[in-house]
Amino acid sequence: MNPDATPHADPRAGAAVKAADRAHVFHSWSAQELIDPLAVAGAEGAYFWDYDGNRYLDFTSGLVFTNIGYQHPTVVAAIQEQAAKLTTFAPAFAVDVRSEAARLIAERTPGDLDKIFFTNGGAEAVENAVRMARLHTGRPKVLSAYRSYHGGTHTAINLTGDPRRWPSDSGTAGVVHFNAPFLYRSPFYAADEAEECARALEHLEATIGFEGPATVAAIILETIPGTAGIMTPPPGYLAGVREICDRYGIVFVLDEVMAGFGRTGKWFAAEHFDVVPDLLTFAKGVNSGYVPLGGVAISAAVADTFATRPYPGGLTYSGHPLACAAAVATIGVMEDEKVVEHAAHLGATVLGPGLRELAARHPSVGEVRGTGAFWALDLVRNAETREPLVPYNASGQANAPMAAFAAACKKGGLWPFVNMNRTHVVPACNITEAEAKEGLAILDAALTVADEHTV
Amino acid sequence: MNPDATPHADPRAGAAVKAADRAHVFHSWSAQELIDPLAVAGAEGAYFWDYDGNRYLDFTSGLVFTNIGYQHPTVVAAIQEQAAKLTTFAPAFAVDVRSEAARLIAERTPGDLDKIFFTNGGAEAVENAVRMARLHTGRPKVLSAYRSYHGGTHTAINLTGDPRRWPSDSGTAGVVHFNAPFLYRSPFYAADEAEECARALEHLEATIGFEGPATVAAIILETIPGTAGIMTPPPGYLAGVREICDRYGIVFVLDEVMAGFGRTGKWFAAEHFDVVPDLLTFAKGVNSGYVPLGGVAISAAVADTFATRPYPGGLTYSGHPLACAAAVATIGVMEDEKVVEHAAHLGATVLGPGLRELAARHPSVGEVRGTGAFWALDLVRNAETREPLVPYNASGQANAPMAAFAAACKKGGLWPFVNMNRTHVVPACNITEAEAKEGLAILDAALTVADEHTV
Ligand SMILES: Cc1ncc(COP(=O)(O)O)c(C=O)c1O
Ligand SMILES: Cc1ncc(COP(=O)(O)O)c(C=O)c1O
Repeated sequence: MNPDATPHADPRAGAAVKAADRAHVFHSWSAQELIDPLAVAGAEGAYFWDYDGNRYLDFTSGLVFTNIGYQHPTVVAAIQEQAAKLTTFAPAFAVDVRSEAARLIAERTPGDLDKIFFTNGGAEAVENAVRMARLHTGRPKVLSAYRSYHGGTHTAINLTGDPRRWPSDSGTAGVVHFNAPFLYRSPFYAADEAEECARALEHLEATIGFEGPATVAAIILETIPGTAGIMTPPPGYLAGVREICDRYGIVFVLDEVMAGFGRTGKWFAAEHFDVVPDLLTFAKGVNSGYVPLGGVAISAAVADTFATRPYPGGLTYSGHPLACAAAVATIGVMEDEKVVEHAAHLGATVLGPGLRELAARHPSVGEVRGTGAFWALDLVRNAETREPLVPYNASGQANAPMAAFAAACKKGGLWPFVNMNRTHVVPACNITEAEAKEGLAILDAALTVADEHTV
Repeated sequence: MNPDATPHADPRAGAAVKAADRAHVFHSWSAQELIDPLAVAGAEGAYFWDYDGNRYLDFTSGLVFTNIGYQHPTVVAAIQEQAAKLTTFAPAFAVDVRSEAARLIAERTPGDLDKIFFTNGGAEAVENAVRMARLHTGRPKVLSAYRSYHGGTHTAINLTGDPRRWPSDSGTAGVVHFNAPFLYRSPFYAADEAEECARALEHLEATIGFEGPATVAAIILETIPGTAGIMTPPPGYLAGVREICDRYGIVFVLDEVMAGFGRTGKWFAAEHFDVVPDLLTFAKGVNSGYVPLGGVAISAAVADTFATRPYPGGLTYSGHPLACAAAVATIGVMEDEKVVEHAAHLGATVLGPGLRELAARHPSVGEVRGTGAFWALDLVRNAETREPLVPYNASGQANAPMAAFAAACKKGGLWPFVNMNRTHVVPACNITEAEAKEGLAILDAALTVADEHTV
């Protein structure tokens, strides 16, 4: 057995890896001299470990991408086989594994989303979806939600509705933000889900009216917003957006980069709402991030726009064979091991009830939201006023309560997903019940630290 | 041995692969119903083959990325080993192979470009280089060249100076195009290289003057423009641009996505000109495209801007371990097998002389340009007037002469790189002399077809 395959202490090796990292790796979303990245030695299933012999239950799935956990042997073997056969080939050709990945994805996406344009990741998928929508409609504007994340490239970051947009924002650039429903912090002063839904749709339609319906190419929404807080939309909202899009000839884009491929207990989150978008973006779970891959699933109507007129977009690695082979194997594993069903079951019987039980005991938990293996705890200073545990976009001292909570999780052996005043529970979708319960117990202890900051 | 590993006829399998492709794969840069993608069955070294038993000498290296050829066993083995060890991990951590790839790249990039920000490909590298330049300078505009390609995402396609930009162009959006030197089709009516160089620099400085020096964040240039025609800049031009950038506090970005990693017979094309940019973008050759990878090499000054202030950009797969392992192995192969030196030798002794010899005999060859394994033949209708063999951005009947030339290459067993009125000779950098000569002989025959369209 590979000596790296289980946790063991080798602090000197860890120090060397970290030193090499600090010498040459420029990290995303970070002040380079203020970070202290953990050197990771190995990972398997729902766990990873460092060079000091510490093992962590990964409640982040990386950045919510290892839906089948780390190092699944079937997918590792498929990557090894494809590497031996044909690791790379240019996009203009037909390649067996590229076609097969497209077929398996198209068969699982809802409705007539039957053509797959492959990219390397989520941002490029969003970029291309927006280009398709603009050219399909001949209109310039795209509407997206505050409280959203769509990626780091120009169009994707401008569509994003979180503070990571600010430094790169180039003004409107054809992008208009609106408020999506979020009853717990309702932008519409609604009393219940039905009212939140009705008002959110009214707001969206009013926004379209002000912007000019004939100027709006697309509305893009995360089906269930991920990094922004896992706000499951109220019943009827997405169907209402679909109806508005149809009324005004607007392309409806659902971004399922994070929510897709089993995360919510369905292949795609859109299935929860019986809604079919015109374009669906995916990445991450499509192959559990084992090889970079993303893409856009395209409806017949949009594909038809580019039947005899060239689609003016592309990238060197569109439909990369190694990435596609990982997708084919991952989808196979998810079918064979019923990973999607498992995520649904886990959400309904372990994570949902377990997190609600924590909420009942911990004053710092304001709301529990989610489904499947996709949950958020909205942490508050005051459960009455719902004042967040830390201010929006807090850093340094202002963020100390969340930092203390995260440190307590790590000390307990759990790597937490933390964003502003929330922790997300987004483990591998095939985590066992026992592992999930182990994680809940660690969260329980860490929430005691958060509780100390409530008033 | 793998039965797919050598060419053999299996047309039924080929038809099935193609049918599956047409059912579900949406292809880049294409009218979906007007394309007929070749189904590829396998590839090795400088060759690939289809399901009809046809083998092609690949004079395209995919899209100019398989610098060490297809299926190099050392890199395949490294991918397999890394897959077994740790195929993926989130970017915020230190991972041995990520640090090692960064070190090997930083050691080879010129000057103090010692920090590496990893992306999945070239477009994302350009997006991030531009973001760094804008934030480093606090200025909005970026200047780029007509006759250039920088990628398919919003910023990258707007910077691009070829017709692929047109359908996605959003007006200026902070981008200004200028003319780079190109003596054979001089935008400056220059008589020789020295005059072309002087006038090109004058034009650039005048453009900066008109735009306002304090509004210009960056100038981005392909060190040697690739897809646009492999126009090696005249001696002194890039040094002159460097000097202008220094004078006005402008960030100098060299895009070496295509020219980098041995393609020109140096590790980076900038070495030919003794110039060090502030940012250098790479992709493709960094790991021969075996796993999607790109990045930005960052100078100390620009990195310092993000020492204590967060860099506001990122992507899920930044520094993907499997991609980094392929880079480490590829760089090792290139060192061990002296691939860079070989490319230089091949250019100087076989490709350069061989192509010039073809030019002397074929009236359709207007100019031979290039170095290393990076060459263009500028095909003309009339060698006197230099009228291109087909008009700029021609399609259909207007493009027939180039289509006939390409068909003749394929019939002869060579897969050609064709763009507008040019064919590029961009084989694997480790192609043998015999293979290069085989390719030149096929080109010789195909050029006879092009000659028929000269006047
Ligand atoms: C919903 C959503 N869209 C797009 C992206 C961007 O994907 P990538 O980081 O692969 O570019 C993300 C990444 O977290 C995401 O969550
Ligand atoms: C010089 C240059 N820059 C950027 C790119 C874009 O790279 P990618 O297709 O990997 O996004 C290319 C691709 O051909 C290129 O040649």
